[in-house]
Amino acid sequence: MKQTDVLVIGGSATGLVAAMTAKSNYPDKKVMVIRKEEKVMIPCGIPYIFSSVQTSDNNILPDGGLVNLGVEILVDEVLSVDTKTKTCKIKNSEDVVFDKLILGTGSLPVVPKWLKGTELENVFTIPKNKVYLDEFHDKLKDFKRIVVVGAGFIGVEVSDELNKAGKEVTLVEILPNVLGATFDQEFAKEAQTLLIERGINVMTGCGIEAILGTSKVEKIKLNNGVELEADAVILSLGYRPNSDLAKDMGLVLNEYGFISADQYRRTSVKDIYAAGDCAEKRDFATGKISRIMLASTACTEARTAGLNLYELNTHSAFRGTVGIYSTCIGDTAFGVAGLIESAATSEGFKVVTGSFTGINRHPGKIADAHKETVKLIVSKQTGVILGGEVLGGKSAGELTNVMGVIIQNHMTVHDLLMTQIGTQPLLTASPAGYPLIKAAEVVLKSLNK
Amino acid sequence: MKQTDVLVIGGSATGLVAAMTAKSNYPDKKVMVIRKEEKVMIPCGIPYIFSSVQTSDNNILPDGGLVNLGVEILVDEVLSVDTKTKTCKIKNSEDVVFDKLILGTGSLPVVPKWLKGTELENVFTIPKNKVYLDEFHDKLKDFKRIVVVGAGFIGVEVSDELNKAGKEVTLVEILPNVLGATFDQEFAKEAQTLLIERGINVMTGCGIEAILGTSKVEKIKLNNGVELEADAVILSLGYRPNSDLAKDMGLVLNEYGFISADQYRRTSVKDIYAAGDCAEKRDFATGKISRIMLASTACTEARTAGLNLYELNTHSAFRGTVGIYSTCIGDTAFGVAGLIESAATSEGFKVVTGSFTGINRHPGKIADAHKETVKLIVSKQTGVILGGEVLGGKSAGELTNVMGVIIQNHMTVHDLLMTQIGTQPLLTASPAGYPLIKAAEVVLKSLNK
Repeated sequence: MKQTDVLVIGGSATGLVAAMTAKSNYPDKKVMVIRKEEKVMIPCGIPYIFSSVQTSDNNILPDGGLVNLGVEILVDEVLSVDTKTKTCKIKNSEDVVFDKLILGTGSLPVVPKWLKGTELENVFTIPKNKVYLDEFHDKLKDFKRIVVVGAGFIGVEVSDELNKAGKEVTLVEILPNVLGATFDQEFAKEAQTLLIERGINVMTGCGIEAILGTSKVEKIKLNNGVELEADAVILSLGYRPNSDLAKDMGLVLNEYGFISADQYRRTSVKDIYAAGDCAEKRDFATGKISRIMLASTACTEARTAGLNLYELNTHSAFRGTVGIYSTCIGDTAFGVAGLIESAATSEGFKVVTGSFTGINRHPGKIADAHKETVKLIVSKQTGVILGGEVLGGKSAGELTNVMGVIIQNHMTVHDLLMTQIGTQPLLTASPAGYPLIKAAEVVLKSLNK
Repeated sequence: MKQTDVLVIGGSATGLVAAMTAKSNYPDKKVMVIRKEEKVMIPCGIPYIFSSVQTSDNNILPDGGLVNLGVEILVDEVLSVDTKTKTCKIKNSEDVVFDKLILGTGSLPVVPKWLKGTELENVFTIPKNKVYLDEFHDKLKDFKRIVVVGAGFIGVEVSDELNKAGKEVTLVEILPNVLGATFDQEFAKEAQTLLIERGINVMTGCGIEAILGTSKVEKIKLNNGVELEADAVILSLGYRPNSDLAKDMGLVLNEYGFISADQYRRTSVKDIYAAGDCAEKRDFATGKISRIMLASTACTEARTAGLNLYELNTHSAFRGTVGIYSTCIGDTAFGVAGLIESAATSEGFKVVTGSFTGINRHPGKIADAHKETVKLIVSKQTGVILGGEVLGGKSAGELTNVMGVIIQNHMTVHDLLMTQIGTQPLLTASPAGYPLIKAAEVVLKSLNK
């Protein structure tokens, strides 16, 4: 029997940040992480192991931060947790008794039960599992035609990487556009055009009916009757919270299977916290249960849990999930923060939007200049900025974070118009034509009508 | 005699944005801009005409925005303004009678009176004047050795560009480091090292005593006795407000020569506004008179003036100047927002700082990965973030704006630690190692001690 003060289950972004925060914040406490994987994948980096960084070994979440702080790492599998005796049973090691427990068990790829053929050889998902991914990577050389099902971020990024690796990629999506759940149509369409230009066969507006084959996958049948030949199929249909352990422990789960957790990330059982993909989240704008899963949000939640273990800290409450995403296709980055227009409208907000297209350098003759478009989604009633979308060069990734901070401060479009920004010819748009501000001007004009 | 409702004097960033805002906000009013220059330089782009964009013709502030809105442009010189009759006398055109006047007369390069030899041929400054700059540009081919005096942003950027254009450049600075007034030492030193690596002869800690020569400049004498041979000298010793016209009009100026102006950018005389480099500013953190001049801040001020012409708009008050700067040397960008450590301390704040160095991509094996360092300057008493500095790849330009928005929202380091950011392998640092957040963690540790 082993003892620790703080036990963290899960070794990905959540577990890492939770353990580091706990140990930094309570240096006298013993902190231990149990995880299944010998080597942990950087979750968002997974699509890039297929071409850009070549191998999963170039995508490892380093242990240095944990080790240097004095966090103990145990690579093993948790069998069960007794919440009364605060004891964790482990497959190949002695039991661990803890005082506080943080669950960061993450998420697993969705494989729909109704879908036939998912058991066939060469049907894959994208889990955060190095061994699985390495096997898939090894097999890639045998595949020519690959069908990716689901054009969310993972589907789009994996498709683009496999295309770069020389595969014939078909990307199938049931929505009218790729990235259609996270971007308004005008941005999603630009992403789609880029993917097509890069040689990916994009088929939108069609679902899948079955995966066909005898032992190996041979074809995929779409709901419009089309059959596509395929050497391999990748299902990127989203992720579900990995909450089976929590369920077995008797923790309350919500209707989507997330572990219920409050603003301090406390679950229904005292001294047990949950953070990241496995934990319940509420939307920042509405307080409704949210199903968004993001490594960056997971890190904030993990920090929240770690800062509130032994005493609640009113400074450190998690105020709800803001979806902040970005991706990059070729030289073009796409970013979104908060609610897109379609989501805001369907939630019941009356919104005014404003878009502006400029250039991300000034003058535009600077060598690496790129078109930059910003769209703002603003509450008509209050002027509060609910969301923003951007398309631009690579700096659009950080520009997305500018919008994220704006939204998290409940700034109005008036506040934004009074906000000073820094501009530089080689780095940003011009001060007089900064698309974020110009989009706010467009919104103001509509609000004043 | 001509009549307009709104008259804007000055055609650079301030004049452009003020006129566009006024016309957008009050579409029924006649708006007119008077400016001296036929073609207006993009102010921040000026250093780049010497190499990156080759000619001043590639650095023109376009008139399209004004023209499309229906703003009248008059290229001429204002001789005087009678504030009682609201009449503007113009060199080559009939008088203009106005209802509201916005002064955006900008700034002029400082040429110290005590400095001998500034009248010599081939001693230059960097004004926002295309004709002057074109003459200088034409002469460049005759120069081999150029001494740039003053290593603020303009001095650094011009030196780097002239070096790229094949000149032998010596950059002289009286402070211990280049950019020493705007960056704390650790960042300034990195900038200096980069300039030296790129072949610029950097001489810091020495002032200039005189510029020597008979008709043309021949040498520059430093206050340490060293004499440098020079075919040309560029003085980049800062700018002073161009407020002579305002003075003649009887407007109140402050002790540094800026036109006194309130939060709505109203001067001491009714219906007359001032914005941009010529207008008085107060520091965001302290309310003290500030001497910072920035095109991006000028644009915010110009918007403020334009939004408050006929009715004060409480949403649109200018709350003080936040210095937000960035620049780029080679592939390395440097940015700063708010108060640096030395400035905050000398103002009387007790501060805690935190720095973190990571990588601006994740995993670090992504091809264009660049070191990224963030330093935060935080009030020890309240945890309010007063300033931030960053060094990184080109996206550090927008990361500077993330810090700018944080500061302008009076966010505390606790707020920042609860803030969600968006991360993507090809675009940003990792969620678990995002330097801005990690720097906040370092600060928190000190605050908790």
